[in-house]
Amino acid sequence: MAMASVRIRQAEEGDCGNILKLIRELAEYEKLSDQVKISEEALRADGFGENPFYCCLVAELLPAPGEPQGPCVVVGYGLYYFIYSTWKGRSVYLEDIYVKPEYRGQGIGSKIIKKVAEVALERGCSQLCLTVLDWNKGAMDLYKALGARDLTEAEGWHSFRFEEEAMRELAGK
Amino acid sequence: MAMASVRIRQAEEGDCGNILKLIRELAEYEKLSDQVKISEEALRADGFGENPFYCCLVAELLPAPGEPQGPCVVVGYGLYYFIYSTWKGRSVYLEDIYVKPEYRGQGIGSKIIKKVAEVALERGCSQLCLTVLDWNKGAMDLYKALGARDLTEAEGWHSFRFEEEAMRELAGK
Repeated sequence: MAMASVRIRQAEEGDCGNILKLIRELAEYEKLSDQVKISEEALRADGFGENPFYCCLVAELLPAPGEPQGPCVVVGYGLYYFIYSTWKGRSVYLEDIYVKPEYRGQGIGSKIIKKVAEVALERGCSQLCLTVLDWNKGAMDLYKALGARDLTEAEGWHSFRFEEEAMRELAGK
Repeated sequence: MAMASVRIRQAEEGDCGNILKLIRELAEYEKLSDQVKISEEALRADGFGENPFYCCLVAELLPAPGEPQGPCVVVGYGLYYFIYSTWKGRSVYLEDIYVKPEYRGQGIGSKIIKKVAEVALERGCSQLCLTVLDWNKGAMDLYKALGARDLTEAEGWHSFRFEEEAMRELAGK
């Protein structure tokens, strides 16, 4: 049987249901599922309105020639947005990248990162940033092999976050 | 003599020269000056066009009553932009926050963070994120005192970055 081929394309609003399923799978893999509060409605509104907050790529399997031509199966995604470095200017942040376990080892993740790098360069960006959990050695090794530096290790950067309650206290609201 | 009071306001395009000076001072303090490649022109184009890549607050000293009413002195800044969490949705990232050494200890930094939290809540954001160097204990203690969590410490998140050369290699360009 011929191998199915993979296409990386920009997500459309109708993909949000599939993307949300994959977001939940990734959070489960990261052992942080309890933090997922997003809804399909929010993903639709925030990614596909006039000034979208994010962009998303999906990886889908195309049926092999001769196979029944049903709807394509989405097996991974990469969600990114534009950020700004006061040292280097326009940059891209890859918030999530995920490939379903049964489709790993075929280079789909690398294809997604490559496509993000292409889009970033087209938009005049000079950096592509992301964050990874320290126990996720497979992902860390992949990013390093593709040319990324671990800035927490090299320079000592720590990620901090104020949650909504802390923000309300700060703002006196 | 009456103490000068401090005003936090949204930056205008004409502030970019002052902001760039402060960006350089901050990078020097962080011992990473060699990484600053940004120009005043880029700051003007990227922050004040139709779809700005960032927003910036400046802290300026107002002359005390009775003092000569010259131009205000910019003594600090906070540069932020909107990001997107696939767990919590709309969020804000505080890229830089800086107050000139001789004006510290007066709560100017906290005022800037509070203003960013206000703007973030008005825009429907539920998180305020930032990154800090592990040896910058003063800053870490301040953010924690204001209610932030150190996610690198608590959950093991590491920051990774692809520089432009690595991106070009990825994209085959």
